[in-house]
Amino acid sequence: MNSIVILGAGNVAFHLTRALIENTVNVRQIFNRTLAHAQEIGEANRIAYTDKISEIEKADLYIIACADSGIEEFSHYIPFDDVLVVHTSGSSPISALKGDYRKGVLYPLQTFTKTKKLRYDEIPFFVEAETPEDTNALKELAFRISNDVYELDYAKRMEIQMCGVWAANFVNHMYKIAGDICAKNNIPFDVLLPLIQETSLKVEEMSPYDAQTGPARRGDDIIIDRHLDLLQNDSRLLQIYQILTDSIKRDYDK
Amino acid sequence: MNSIVILGAGNVAFHLTRALIENTVNVRQIFNRTLAHAQEIGEANRIAYTDKISEIEKADLYIIACADSGIEEFSHYIPFDDVLVVHTSGSSPISALKGDYRKGVLYPLQTFTKTKKLRYDEIPFFVEAETPEDTNALKELAFRISNDVYELDYAKRMEIQMCGVWAANFVNHMYKIAGDICAKNNIPFDVLLPLIQETSLKVEEMSPYDAQTGPARRGDDIIIDRHLDLLQNDSRLLQIYQILTDSIKRDYDK
Repeated sequence: MNSIVILGAGNVAFHLTRALIENTVNVRQIFNRTLAHAQEIGEANRIAYTDKISEIEKADLYIIACADSGIEEFSHYIPFDDVLVVHTSGSSPISALKGDYRKGVLYPLQTFTKTKKLRYDEIPFFVEAETPEDTNALKELAFRISNDVYELDYAKRMEIQMCGVWAANFVNHMYKIAGDICAKNNIPFDVLLPLIQETSLKVEEMSPYDAQTGPARRGDDIIIDRHLDLLQNDSRLLQIYQILTDSIKRDYDK
Repeated sequence: MNSIVILGAGNVAFHLTRALIENTVNVRQIFNRTLAHAQEIGEANRIAYTDKISEIEKADLYIIACADSGIEEFSHYIPFDDVLVVHTSGSSPISALKGDYRKGVLYPLQTFTKTKKLRYDEIPFFVEAETPEDTNALKELAFRISNDVYELDYAKRMEIQMCGVWAANFVNHMYKIAGDICAKNNIPFDVLLPLIQETSLKVEEMSPYDAQTGPARRGDDIIIDRHLDLLQNDSRLLQIYQILTDSIKRDYDK
């Protein structure tokens, strides 16, 4: 890919632009409907930016990095046929792109926040295209950024995206609940951080099945009942605690 | 504390002994009913070990590091009155200790695995004793190991232990479920690791409330419905997905 235009200016666009530029890929321009957001990324990476559809430049590849709900609209903005256009969503099919150009997907599995630095070379990329040539071109591009690149169709991309919900979104919600309990007891959330880090590092060295600890895994109903007592005034947490405990117990036949 | 005897030879005993020795605290002896386990820790740390109750040496402090169900039995083994005896459990009261000696608790909040190295100085310790003198002595000892030491009574210790269930045990179960879904789709679990690490590191810099991402937080019912479709043949996962999604939605009024 000799030249790339990025469409969108959210967290994915921000980090993807930086990751490409850092790896000396030629990102020619960034487009966004809100100029200030395009400008922020453009100036940070010393590339052109615009908010005008008519100013979108010709390039080999267009990367639409926006929310799922915006893919179709963005996909109409590209006025060329002999180009490749991809979106970056785990949960949309190639057919979300509506133009007459060649189409594909470049999906990075990571949680992106503008303010947080990331190691781009460790981010898994999942690519899909309509032809082997475009698939290979996208793979090659992803390998410029990362060591972890896979070809994956829509059905499996949905599955891996859902894995992200379990391993990141739901995990963060567990942190949130633990933090709420700490706060209620005037204990700083920070005391949980070493445990949180250790729990995430453990599965680098052993499977989650082997890494499981705690009263549910041991089938320790005395402790479980004490915890349920503590939660008796919060039906939401009580229900979640019970269901997750039952689920762990089932995994270990307790 | 001029001299310490450890009772028990599980994961907590293993790491606590090492943490004390590394910080030049005088651990005199390790006792366990299964000699081989006491021997393993004893030899690794060049301290005496025994499996005979009659050979338990006199010391200033006895640390009973065993499962909750074993605390009472171990607590009978100590044949001295003018000593301090503590257990290391988050979920047992001081009164689980049955002798006529002075009593207390030294609870480290961490998930311990023998095979994994830990940064001991980051582990939060929660101490409790019957007198200010013993409380201070336990605090002083914990500060030899860690920078993070708190005085905490039984009621709050139970709460913080339950936080550990949420932030570690339930989190690991989320990893397990994500891993199962990966396996079913022939995707290696390793692709989730950068996301898992980033998710845990994010809450070092922002609150879990601010760190939350994903379809539930956005109220993106299109994606949520697609995920529920993927889970329709697994009532257990379907139920968990729904309950956690509803819980996140409620946090953000979606």
